[in-house]
Amino acid sequence: MTELESLREQLRDFAAERDWDRFHSPKNLAMALAVEAGELLETFQWLTEDETRSLAPETLAAASDEVADVLLYLIRLSDKLGIDMIAAANRKLLANAGKYPADKARGNSKKYTEF
Amino acid sequence: MTELESLREQLRDFAAERDWDRFHSPKNLAMALAVEAGELLETFQWLTEDETRSLAPETLAAASDEVADVLLYLIRLSDKLGIDMIAAANRKLLANAGKYPADKARGNSKKYTEF
Amino acid sequence: MTELESLREQLRDFAAERDWDRFHSPKNLAMALAVEAGELLETFQWLTEDETRSLAPETLAAASDEVADVLLYLIRLSDKLGIDMIAAANRKLLANAGKYPADKARGNSKKYTEF
Amino acid sequence: MTELESLREQLRDFAAERDWDRFHSPKNLAMALAVEAGELLETFQWLTEDETRSLAPETLAAASDEVADVLLYLIRLSDKLGIDMIAAANRKLLANAGKYPADKARGNSKKYTEF
Repeated sequence: MTELESLREQLRDFAAERDWDRFHSPKNLAMALAVEAGELLETFQWLTEDETRSLAPETLAAASDEVADVLLYLIRLSDKLGIDMIAAANRKLLANAGKYPADKARGNSKKYTEF
Repeated sequence: MTELESLREQLRDFAAERDWDRFHSPKNLAMALAVEAGELLETFQWLTEDETRSLAPETLAAASDEVADVLLYLIRLSDKLGIDMIAAANRKLLANAGKYPADKARGNSKKYTEF
Repeated sequence: MTELESLREQLRDFAAERDWDRFHSPKNLAMALAVEAGELLETFQWLTEDETRSLAPETLAAASDEVADVLLYLIRLSDKLGIDMIAAANRKLLANAGKYPADKARGNSKKYTEF
Repeated sequence: MTELESLREQLRDFAAERDWDRFHSPKNLAMALAVEAGELLETFQWLTEDETRSLAPETLAAASDEVADVLLYLIRLSDKLGIDMIAAANRKLLANAGKYPADKARGNSKKYTEF
């Protein structure tokens, strides 16, 4: 079992033990994921880009917690929808390589906004 | 190398070949992740909870693409911050098990809002 | 002076008195607005659609606070960008009337997702 | 009738003519607002803070469109919940003045993250 599969199993047990499956519609899980993405954003909102490149330990710990929350909801949502998220990410990377050829996209952030 | 590590390496190469590292501050990557979380949300916004439990194939494909985008930015952000996201998720699960004891949280979504 | 203009003036004074203008780049204000939109979302994430149609007083008060935060950042961002948000909303409404003719869009949420 | 009230009336008519009221639960409207906040964020995601202080005309027009969308959903959500958003914003400003005294908060963005 991979590490992601192990997390998926733990989340299944966690929800089953608490009778939370009925709250875990894909709609609600997508909302919860967006809420956590907002909390991650909050960690950085008043910092400059450079400040976020070398975070204070407590800010890094807070960001790490929010990254974990996003990952957990992403795993749970993928489980509920039957999505293999590693395969989906590999497909997306392949598609992006065709969409943004290295020689044309060099140093151009505008080419990146559709990612 | 795990599947996540392989994706991380591919993302590093992808950014290096396009000279995109300078755009990839943690602040910008957290913004990009939130944008993708919004696009995932868009897939479900006018559907009922039940409708999201049995998606039409094209909606599922769209959701799968957005899940992939969120995962890719999560991997990239974690790489830039030096976060081991699997370890962070395991720590969070452990903390949540203490925070929401199964016997008290049963069927109670209010106990879940802090997750 | 309209009510929105009065809020805009108060926000200008508020920021000036605290020397916060330098934090208020449009980029940062858009992040702050998205954070507040996430907090608003959090209020409703585990409730059913019907439950959100008749909120408990404390949930309504929480939602009201988040609505206020979104509005304040929207006013501040518009001020910094020189956007007349009432005029922009009127233009958008006019464009949407052409995009979603009443007779064709009736009861069809798919026609609404581009709004 | 104020400008906001006029927009509220137009939105009521717009939804009624299209039989869209049943899609407009507060839960769905909060999701739609978060989606638009994400699109606003997208406008700025790869720009530096300074670049967002002097936008190109087409970027400003795009940002203006997204500001309009956020405002429209905010008005519609407030209408559905019976929230007077101007009053709520005034209450919040007053509360914030007490929470962040000018002399202590000067130039300190950390004092602002709870806003």
